[in-house]
Amino acid sequence: MSLHPSVAAVRLPVRAGLADLDAAEAVAVACSGGPDSVALASAAVFEGHKRGLRVVGVTVDHGLQDGSADQADRVVRLLAALGVDETLTARVAVDPGSGMGPEAAAREARYAVLEQVATHLGAVRVLLGHTLDDQAETVLLGLARGSGGRSLRGMRPGFGVFARPLLGVRRDDTVTACQVEGLEVWDDPHNHDPGYTRVRVRRRVLPVLEDELGPGVAEALARTAEQLRDDTALLEELADGLLDRARREGGLDVATLAGAPPALRHRVLHRAVLEAGSPAAEVTRGHVLEVDRLLVDWRGQRWIDLPGPRRAARRDGLLVVGPA
Amino acid sequence: MSLHPSVAAVRLPVRAGLADLDAAEAVAVACSGGPDSVALASAAVFEGHKRGLRVVGVTVDHGLQDGSADQADRVVRLLAALGVDETLTARVAVDPGSGMGPEAAAREARYAVLEQVATHLGAVRVLLGHTLDDQAETVLLGLARGSGGRSLRGMRPGFGVFARPLLGVRRDDTVTACQVEGLEVWDDPHNHDPGYTRVRVRRRVLPVLEDELGPGVAEALARTAEQLRDDTALLEELADGLLDRARREGGLDVATLAGAPPALRHRVLHRAVLEAGSPAAEVTRGHVLEVDRLLVDWRGQRWIDLPGPRRAARRDGLLVVGPA
Repeated sequence: MSLHPSVAAVRLPVRAGLADLDAAEAVAVACSGGPDSVALASAAVFEGHKRGLRVVGVTVDHGLQDGSADQADRVVRLLAALGVDETLTARVAVDPGSGMGPEAAAREARYAVLEQVATHLGAVRVLLGHTLDDQAETVLLGLARGSGGRSLRGMRPGFGVFARPLLGVRRDDTVTACQVEGLEVWDDPHNHDPGYTRVRVRRRVLPVLEDELGPGVAEALARTAEQLRDDTALLEELADGLLDRARREGGLDVATLAGAPPALRHRVLHRAVLEAGSPAAEVTRGHVLEVDRLLVDWRGQRWIDLPGPRRAARRDGLLVVGPA
Repeated sequence: MSLHPSVAAVRLPVRAGLADLDAAEAVAVACSGGPDSVALASAAVFEGHKRGLRVVGVTVDHGLQDGSADQADRVVRLLAALGVDETLTARVAVDPGSGMGPEAAAREARYAVLEQVATHLGAVRVLLGHTLDDQAETVLLGLARGSGGRSLRGMRPGFGVFARPLLGVRRDDTVTACQVEGLEVWDDPHNHDPGYTRVRVRRRVLPVLEDELGPGVAEALARTAEQLRDDTALLEELADGLLDRARREGGLDVATLAGAPPALRHRVLHRAVLEAGSPAAEVTRGHVLEVDRLLVDWRGQRWIDLPGPRRAARRDGLLVVGPA
């Protein structure tokens, strides 16, 4: 029997993502019970065992819904049936007073506990099941924030111990792969709650984009993220260098900054404003452009008011940002 | 009577956009009769005359619709009523065999004739009525192409003799400004033809984005374009430099390219492939990444097949792209 294309689509990047590991090393798979992570777990067992790796399944119980412990147990049984070498349920409590939104707080808590679990299990890598569709949704969410390349670069294919081997795989392929392999999946009710912006992007925005702009929009968004990730990495590195060169006792050297291209100047100014204590969520591109005019369009403006409150002023050839 | 906010919203950037011109210089306004360009023409007359400029109204007759000559006459009368110093109808014939799509061909022809008219009239600037909404639509159209920053940077605020002073003004403000000023406007039937992707973006995609992601999406898209324009300008300049440094007799120096960051390497490779004759419309990011592996992940690949057909190969420390 030949391999179903959707199963192959999931296995291929998982194989490539494990290719650098040595036999007997352990890899963990985070699994919610949804089709993405179940297809990932199945592929990780298949490809991992072929390479002689230990494959550990981890499910996270946020305790946010009634019956979440039952659900975690169900995922553990599913993972065991898939043939993982070990399963583990990690319980996390989300701090509602963290200042983050509930989605961000749950995500932070999940990654923190997965990292601990990886250390505990001696796993050298933790696989996450995000797909190309998740990436496209992330780009659209970033687009709505409008902070340029930074907000459009989407999710990283890897960071620290984490890897996202399915970032180039369509969600439909994970669903089909589970069906073909006869794997029972469970859909998180959060995935249907239109109170979440991400759910609305998935269910209303992306389908309309595909209808009106043609199929391939999700792939185009993912490609854009990939390219902007490279672009942003270089621009941030160059901005680091410019900031270092411009630093003086008490401020930033106006001449050094004024001679730099706008793409770097604006990044350095944004950082300088945050370093001085303006809250990131309140600093707009408009603020940065106003501060920039102190450098390149100075007509004796005395200062620029910034959130915090902070003030930016030009003084003796230095740009100074400090308390208002 | 105080100035209506929408009239002010249109006049303010027009004033700023004319501030560098000297009295008695001439400025042309391209006017289709639609609300954007009628509001622009009205603001240009008001602000231009205040500065002692000559303001010339130009309308372009593409001859694409029945009655387009009548419509051009109507726009000329409207411009005269607005108080422009002179009006002019430019007739263009769009070449259907140009290989461009009909929208692109009409746009090219329009800009070419406007430039000729400007020279003929001695106008130092030609104002175009594109709004923030047009910019947001352009970004979304680029997003669907998925070629990263280049496709998302939208329309330029100025190029050559052309300027787009309303690129930060909402379309609604131009409509309201015309109503408040009692100006009769005419809507191009093309603006309602769902056969045009741009029309579908305007009428279906942007409204859904605003509904689901919150108001301010159009502004966010325009801000993104602005920032990516700066970023792209710098990255293209750096890629120019890298390409120059890598050029050798017969190819590009592998060592020079391999040491460069991916953002620049991929740009240089894309150009090298186009220079070698691969058709731009067929070269994908996938091709560029394959060629890149000749530089940074070379395991003896013999060559990479490219559209054209062309081939990229690594030979004696050089990357060579040529006929297959």
